[in-house]
Amino acid sequence: MKRIAIDMDEVMADFVTKHLYLYNSDFNESLTKKDLLGKKLRHLRPGREKELMEYIDEPDFFRDLEVMEGSQEVIRELSEHYEIFITTAAMEHPASFTAKYEWLNEHFPFLSDMNIVFCGDKSIIHADYLIDDNARHFRRFTGQGILFTSPHNVNETDYVRVNNWKEVREFFLK
Amino acid sequence: MKRIAIDMDEVMADFVTKHLYLYNSDFNESLTKKDLLGKKLRHLRPGREKELMEYIDEPDFFRDLEVMEGSQEVIRELSEHYEIFITTAAMEHPASFTAKYEWLNEHFPFLSDMNIVFCGDKSIIHADYLIDDNARHFRRFTGQGILFTSPHNVNETDYVRVNNWKEVREFFLK
Repeated sequence: MKRIAIDMDEVMADFVTKHLYLYNSDFNESLTKKDLLGKKLRHLRPGREKELMEYIDEPDFFRDLEVMEGSQEVIRELSEHYEIFITTAAMEHPASFTAKYEWLNEHFPFLSDMNIVFCGDKSIIHADYLIDDNARHFRRFTGQGILFTSPHNVNETDYVRVNNWKEVREFFLK
Repeated sequence: MKRIAIDMDEVMADFVTKHLYLYNSDFNESLTKKDLLGKKLRHLRPGREKELMEYIDEPDFFRDLEVMEGSQEVIRELSEHYEIFITTAAMEHPASFTAKYEWLNEHFPFLSDMNIVFCGDKSIIHADYLIDDNARHFRRFTGQGILFTSPHNVNETDYVRVNNWKEVREFFLK
């Protein structure tokens, strides 16, 4: 059985919508995902990097993120044909451990805890595929990287791209 | 540069001494590590499995474990010649995330957070070697398993064994 490793933020969990909402509310702006095409919020507002990081370092930030459309159904279906591991760079935000774990248990109860991985450098992941929105994780990954579209990565052209979970399904189950 | 993955409990952190101490104190017994040769405490006292698990599920259990003798010096030395990742099955005890993270930062500050992995099934680990006290993690691991002696594993004969960190040093740096 082949193995698919799946990232959480911007792949299973809608990170950007909440981050943008908190920023817009606090700084009286009305930035949208379109403003983030090709970049991350911290690159668009470099002077606010500290505040932008503080949102994420708040222990509950990751607890109530919206589930990405179609991810539950497709991952459940994939899990019948592939070994699924959830591989998230939680070490970048150690305050997030419990929230991320609880979020997965709430929204993806059919996945085993034993298949959850909190890591930093994803070159440690042994899998045939890695679905991720950050192409940097593919550089030393020994399997095939599958880039999941997020505003910041729209200009990345080096990897197979999927735009949504319907396309993930087509890639793996056709 | 070859990569060594290293388990925490019973390899870097002295899990058994504290577990045994708590058990002996609460149940007025005087079990020693010798009583655990070839088995785990829960196998020696199956009727106390629930209480034995409760100690470990206490969020601070892992925070003040003693450092295994020689581990700091040898891991620091190994890190000059190998890529080092710490790979612990923290998903078995989700309450332990923060304590394990803080413990590593306190006692092994020279390791990068990016090289810490909290997982369950260690077949997800991509490394050349895995130093672990639980042989079950070697069965689907694609690198070489190195069994670190702990009372429970003394009868295991299928893997290269190291009895202490001096022997780890000899294995990797000779």
